[in-house]
Amino acid sequence: MSHRFVFIGAGNLATHLSAEFQKKGFFIEQVYSRSKKSAAMLARKLDTKYTTSVAEILPGADGYFVALKDDAFEKVLPEIKFQNKLLVHCSGSLPLSCLKDFSSNTGVFYPLQTFSKNRQVDFSNIPVFIEANSPENEKKLIEIAEQISGRVAVIDSQKRLNLHIAAVFACNFVNHFYTIAGEVLKSKEIPFNVLKPLIQETAGKVQEMEPASAQTGPAVRFDENVIAKHLEELKTLPGFRELYKIISESIFKFHQNR
Amino acid sequence: MSHRFVFIGAGNLATHLSAEFQKKGFFIEQVYSRSKKSAAMLARKLDTKYTTSVAEILPGADGYFVALKDDAFEKVLPEIKFQNKLLVHCSGSLPLSCLKDFSSNTGVFYPLQTFSKNRQVDFSNIPVFIEANSPENEKKLIEIAEQISGRVAVIDSQKRLNLHIAAVFACNFVNHFYTIAGEVLKSKEIPFNVLKPLIQETAGKVQEMEPASAQTGPAVRFDENVIAKHLEELKTLPGFRELYKIISESIFKFHQNR
Repeated sequence: MSHRFVFIGAGNLATHLSAEFQKKGFFIEQVYSRSKKSAAMLARKLDTKYTTSVAEILPGADGYFVALKDDAFEKVLPEIKFQNKLLVHCSGSLPLSCLKDFSSNTGVFYPLQTFSKNRQVDFSNIPVFIEANSPENEKKLIEIAEQISGRVAVIDSQKRLNLHIAAVFACNFVNHFYTIAGEVLKSKEIPFNVLKPLIQETAGKVQEMEPASAQTGPAVRFDENVIAKHLEELKTLPGFRELYKIISESIFKFHQNR
Repeated sequence: MSHRFVFIGAGNLATHLSAEFQKKGFFIEQVYSRSKKSAAMLARKLDTKYTTSVAEILPGADGYFVALKDDAFEKVLPEIKFQNKLLVHCSGSLPLSCLKDFSSNTGVFYPLQTFSKNRQVDFSNIPVFIEANSPENEKKLIEIAEQISGRVAVIDSQKRLNLHIAAVFACNFVNHFYTIAGEVLKSKEIPFNVLKPLIQETAGKVQEMEPASAQTGPAVRFDENVIAKHLEELKTLPGFRELYKIISESIFKFHQNR
């Protein structure tokens, strides 16, 4: 099994994944980031070396893990000599093929989770989706993934793109709605705290029920009085008012057609 | 303390709240609902009487709890003789004053949670918001609420309306986005299961962090490549594509102004 990795990127995902690899006995040889602050911070955490220069990226590692913003790929990767070592990216929405000009051994390692720097996550339950350009590389990546997670699956680029879209709805957009809810409360000096049990229960319900069956609230009941009152009250927060209207219509339409 | 209650309404909230009251030693004398099926089902669960006729609602109970769809209030309440007994509604968006024509003792009892019929909830952690038309009635309702929850607070109608709006965003809209995420996955034959750890972690993060600080994903990073790819892929699901666009813009705008 491959044991010496270089991380290209030092953001939230790189931080958590490299630390988890290290915990499981893999050796993180080096961290590269265009940002000196990020590179240094992650290298300190891992007690390893870092660089901000692509020319200094160490050759001969067993795996290069690319965890960059998607639009940085084109700028960074052509500058690096991977010498046909295993080159792996961690992006939901980039196809495997985007790596083919840079190495003859390529793969994707996509953990489906939200990572924030100062929050620990338990990798054992995180689904990790693998893709590779050969059965040998697939086998290698599965073996690596199984060291950190009990939920490893092979999936193609097209499906992974849809996984990512689903994750944007179920996580990024959801978190934005938590934010908006907090802003509504803040406008009346009510602490965010009061929503926490509701947020937990809403997430808890769909661990056991179909989300469509778990739907509650004025839109699915088509409770026009309540909706009108909420839209009236939201007049001082026009951006949120517009979202309220559009999403209520989407809920009503979806459940009418079920 | 008041001990004999009548429930007017037999929906999700009435079902859970009446059962919880019964568990804590209150006596549910009767259930009224316009739907015979709902009335009978809840009465059977509570081992009590039910009626579908407002004329048969029992007089002399210590409290009448109204848990109806908001637009049913005007149809049902004028028909009932409450004889100035304690009349309480459980709606987020109706003011206390909507009860003043029907009794001289009125209040609001608003548990901030999502209730689905076949799912148990732990009331002890649910915030219950109280309002009443006199200090005596307020005291009574606080005493009742404290039997079932450790988080009882007094709040006025205006603030409660905003609590309800916040709950629509943080629960009803969130659940709709779980549903949409499931539909996106279904279109590629991927099971909803893979999203469950992500959903739990997204809710878990905001138990400890400010939601704005927990925001991740392409919109807050302004990762245009990813957003464009997602919009292209969502062309076959145009309603969801439109939501994706609008909410990404909302995220970007909100975080740009922070």
